[in-house]
Amino acid sequence: MAQQKNQMVRLAKIQVDPSQLEQYNAALKKQMTTAVLKEPGVLTYYAVADKSDPTHITILEIYADTTAYKAHIETPHFKKYKETVQHMVKSLELIDVNLIGVAKKPDM
Amino acid sequence: MAQQKNQMVRLAKIQVDPSQLEQYNAALKKQMTTAVLKEPGVLTYYAVADKSDPTHITILEIYADTTAYKAHIETPHFKKYKETVQHMVKSLELIDVNLIGVAKKPDM
Repeated sequence: MAQQKNQMVRLAKIQVDPSQLEQYNAALKKQMTTAVLKEPGVLTYYAVADKSDPTHITILEIYADTTAYKAHIETPHFKKYKETVQHMVKSLELIDVNLIGVAKKPDM
Repeated sequence: MAQQKNQMVRLAKIQVDPSQLEQYNAALKKQMTTAVLKEPGVLTYYAVADKSDPTHITILEIYADTTAYKAHIETPHFKKYKETVQHMVKSLELIDVNLIGVAKKPDM
Protein backbone atom coordinates (compact mmCIF):
# COMPACT_ATOMS: atom_id res chain seq x y z
CA MET A 1 0.00 0.00 0.00
CA ALA A 2 1.65 3.23 -1.14
CA GLN A 3 0.46 6.78 -0.59
CA GLN A 4 -2.72 7.73 -2.39
CA LYS A 5 -1.99 10.48 -4.88
CA ASN A 6 -3.45 13.46 -3.05
CA GLN A 7 -3.03 12.40 0.56
CA MET A 8 -1.44 14.83 2.96
CA VAL A 9 0.87 13.08 5.42
CA ARG A 10 2.65 14.78 8.27
CA LEU A 11 4.68 14.25 11.40
CA ALA A 12 3.96 16.60 14.28
CA LYS A 13 6.65 16.73 16.96
CA ILE A 14 5.36 18.20 20.18
CA GLN A 15 7.03 18.94 23.47
CA VAL A 16 4.62 19.19 26.39
CA ASP A 17 4.90 20.89 29.76
CA PRO A 18 5.64 17.94 32.11
CA SER A 19 3.24 19.23 34.76
CA GLN A 20 0.34 19.10 32.27
CA LEU A 21 1.16 15.91 30.39
CA GLU A 22 -1.86 13.92 31.52
CA GLN A 23 -4.27 16.70 30.55
CA TYR A 24 -2.49 17.17 27.24
CA ASN A 25 -2.71 13.48 26.33
CA ALA A 26 -6.42 13.44 27.18
CA ALA A 27 -7.08 16.49 24.97
CA LEU A 28 -5.02 14.96 22.14
CA LYS A 29 -6.87 11.66 22.26
CA LYS A 30 -10.21 13.45 22.28
CA GLN A 31 -9.22 15.54 19.26
CA MET A 32 -7.94 12.54 17.29
CA THR A 33 -11.01 10.41 17.97
CA THR A 34 -13.50 13.18 17.25
CA ALA A 35 -11.81 14.26 14.01
CA VAL A 36 -11.65 10.71 12.59
CA LEU A 37 -15.28 10.10 13.61
CA LYS A 38 -16.76 13.33 12.30
CA GLU A 39 -14.60 14.29 9.31
CA PRO A 40 -14.57 12.13 6.17
CA GLY A 41 -11.15 13.49 5.15
CA VAL A 42 -9.33 12.81 8.43
CA LEU A 43 -8.02 9.30 7.89
CA THR A 44 -5.36 8.28 10.41
CA TYR A 45 -3.58 9.40 13.58
CA TYR A 46 -0.90 7.53 15.52
CA ALA A 47 0.38 9.36 18.60
CA VAL A 48 3.46 8.07 20.41
CA ALA A 49 5.58 9.30 23.32
CA ASP A 50 9.28 8.64 23.83
CA LYS A 51 9.74 6.07 26.61
CA SER A 52 12.79 7.94 27.87
CA ASP A 53 10.82 11.22 28.02
CA PRO A 54 7.03 10.99 27.62
CA THR A 55 6.77 14.77 27.15
CA HIS A 56 8.29 14.23 23.67
CA ILE A 57 5.37 13.27 21.47
CA THR A 58 5.27 12.38 17.77
CA ILE A 59 2.02 12.21 15.80
CA LEU A 60 1.68 10.64 12.36
CA GLU A 61 -1.25 12.31 10.61
CA ILE A 62 -2.90 11.32 7.32
CA TYR A 63 -5.55 13.44 5.60
CA ALA A 64 -7.36 12.66 2.32
CA ASP A 65 -5.91 15.84 0.79
CA THR A 66 -4.97 19.40 1.71
CA THR A 67 -8.59 20.52 1.37
CA ALA A 68 -9.56 18.04 4.08
CA TYR A 69 -6.76 19.37 6.28
CA LYS A 70 -7.80 22.98 5.77
CA ALA A 71 -11.39 22.07 6.68
CA HIS A 72 -10.12 20.15 9.73
CA ILE A 73 -8.35 23.12 11.31
CA GLU A 74 -11.56 25.16 11.07
CA THR A 75 -13.71 22.63 12.95
CA PRO A 76 -15.01 23.41 16.46
CA HIS A 77 -13.32 20.30 17.94
CA PHE A 78 -9.90 21.25 16.53
CA LYS A 79 -10.24 24.86 17.68
CA LYS A 80 -11.27 23.62 21.12
CA TYR A 81 -8.18 21.37 21.24
CA LYS A 82 -5.86 24.23 20.23
CA GLU A 83 -7.39 26.48 22.89
CA THR A 84 -7.18 23.76 25.56
CA VAL A 85 -3.51 22.95 24.90
CA GLN A 86 -2.17 26.42 24.14
CA HIS A 87 -0.40 26.69 27.50
CA MET A 88 0.54 22.98 27.63
CA VAL A 89 2.62 22.83 24.45
CA LYS A 90 6.19 24.08 24.77
CA SER A 91 7.15 23.50 21.15
CA LEU A 92 5.55 22.25 17.95
CA GLU A 93 7.33 21.18 14.77
CA LEU A 94 5.34 20.16 11.69
CA ILE A 95 7.15 18.06 9.09
CA ASP A 96 5.51 17.35 5.74
CA VAL A 97 6.33 13.83 4.61
CA ASN A 98 5.56 11.37 1.85
CA LEU A 99 4.40 7.88 2.67
CA ILE A 100 6.97 5.40 1.35
CA GLY A 101 4.81 2.46 2.33
CA VAL A 102 2.48 0.90 4.87
CA ALA A 103 2.34 -2.76 5.86
CA LYS A 104 0.00 -4.01 8.55
CA LYS A 105 -2.16 -6.86 9.63
CA PRO A 106 -5.70 -6.66 8.20
CA ASP A 107 -7.23 -6.13 11.64
CA MET A 108 -4.77 -3.45 12.81
CA MET B 1 -7.62 2.33 20.73
CA ALA B 2 -4.70 2.47 23.17
CA GLN B 3 -1.57 0.37 23.22
CA GLN B 4 -2.06 -3.30 23.94
CA LYS B 5 -0.27 -4.18 27.16
CA ASN B 6 2.75 -5.98 25.77
CA GLN B 7 3.15 -4.32 22.38
CA MET B 8 6.56 -3.04 21.43
CA VAL B 9 6.34 0.28 19.56
CA ARG B 10 9.29 2.08 18.06
CA LEU B 11 10.35 4.91 15.82
CA ALA B 12 13.35 4.25 13.58
CA LYS B 13 15.01 7.34 12.15
CA ILE B 14 17.18 6.53 9.18
CA GLN B 15 19.38 8.67 7.00
CA VAL B 16 20.08 7.15 3.60
CA ASP B 17 22.87 7.73 1.09
CA PRO B 18 21.17 9.97 -1.52
CA SER B 19 22.72 8.05 -4.42
CA GLN B 20 21.08 4.82 -3.22
CA LEU B 21 17.71 6.11 -2.07
CA GLU B 22 15.63 4.30 -4.67
CA GLN B 23 17.28 0.95 -3.91
CA TYR B 24 16.94 1.57 -0.18
CA ASN B 25 13.21 2.32 -0.40
CA ALA B 26 12.66 -0.81 -2.47
CA ALA B 27 14.51 -2.97 0.08
CA LEU B 28 12.59 -1.35 2.94
CA LYS B 29 9.21 -1.95 1.33
CA LYS B 30 10.08 -5.56 0.61
CA GLN B 31 11.18 -6.11 4.23
CA MET B 32 8.04 -4.48 5.65
CA THR B 33 5.64 -6.40 3.42
CA THR B 34 7.35 -9.75 3.92
CA ALA B 35 7.58 -9.42 7.70
CA VAL B 36 3.90 -8.49 8.11
CA LEU B 37 2.88 -11.33 5.77
CA LYS B 38 5.04 -14.06 7.29
CA GLU B 39 5.35 -13.16 10.97
CA PRO B 40 2.29 -13.27 13.24
CA GLY B 41 3.93 -10.86 15.71
CA VAL B 42 4.88 -8.14 13.21
CA LEU B 43 1.78 -5.94 13.24
CA THR B 44 2.33 -2.55 11.64
CA TYR B 45 4.85 -0.45 9.71
CA TYR B 46 4.42 3.08 8.40
CA ALA B 47 7.46 4.45 6.57
CA VAL B 48 7.62 8.15 5.68
CA ALA B 49 10.22 10.43 4.12
CA ASP B 50 10.63 14.15 4.79
CA LYS B 51 9.37 16.12 1.78
CA SER B 52 12.21 18.60 2.20
CA ASP B 53 14.80 15.79 2.23
CA PRO B 54 13.59 12.31 1.20
CA THR B 55 16.82 10.75 2.50
CA HIS B 56 15.45 11.38 6.03
CA ILE B 57 13.14 8.47 6.74
CA THR B 58 11.02 7.70 9.80
CA ILE B 59 9.45 4.30 10.40
CA LEU B 60 6.73 3.59 12.96
CA GLU B 61 6.98 -0.07 13.95
CA ILE B 62 4.56 -2.09 16.08
CA TYR B 63 5.30 -5.63 17.25
CA ALA B 64 3.03 -7.86 19.35
CA ASP B 65 5.71 -8.01 22.07
CA THR B 66 9.49 -8.05 22.50
CA THR B 67 9.57 -11.79 21.84
CA ALA B 68 8.05 -11.18 18.41
CA TYR B 69 10.66 -8.49 17.75
CA LYS B 70 13.53 -10.73 18.80
CA ALA B 71 12.21 -13.46 16.48
CA HIS B 72 11.84 -10.89 13.69
CA ILE B 73 15.48 -9.85 13.65
CA GLU B 74 16.51 -13.49 13.28
CA THR B 75 14.40 -14.14 10.16
CA PRO B 76 16.05 -14.65 6.76
CA HIS B 77 14.13 -11.72 5.22
CA PHE B 78 15.25 -9.29 7.92
CA LYS B 79 18.86 -10.47 7.72
CA LYS B 80 18.70 -10.11 3.94
CA TYR B 81 17.39 -6.54 4.33
CA LYS B 82 20.17 -5.62 6.78
CA GLU B 83 22.78 -7.05 4.44
CA THR B 84 21.30 -5.28 1.41
CA VAL B 85 21.15 -1.86 3.07
CA GLN B 86 24.35 -1.97 5.12
CA HIS B 87 26.15 0.45 2.78
CA MET B 88 23.04 2.54 2.04
CA VAL B 89 22.25 3.64 5.59
CA LYS B 90 24.32 6.56 6.87
CA SER B 91 22.73 6.68 10.31
CA LEU B 92 20.12 4.82 12.31
CA GLU B 93 18.45 5.95 15.52
CA LEU B 94 15.99 3.66 17.33
CA ILE B 95 13.57 5.31 19.76
CA ASP B 96 11.39 3.18 22.01
CA VAL B 97 7.98 4.78 22.40
CA ASN B 98 4.60 4.16 23.97
CA LEU B 99 1.45 4.46 21.93
CA ILE B 100 -0.69 7.26 23.36
CA GLY B 101 -3.51 6.51 20.96
CA VAL B 102 -4.56 5.56 17.45
CA ALA B 103 -7.57 6.87 15.57
CA LYS B 104 -8.30 5.83 12.01
CA LYS B 105 -11.01 5.08 9.53
CA PRO B 106 -12.12 1.42 9.66
CA ASP B 107 -10.76 0.75 6.16
CA MET B 108 -7.36 2.42 6.71
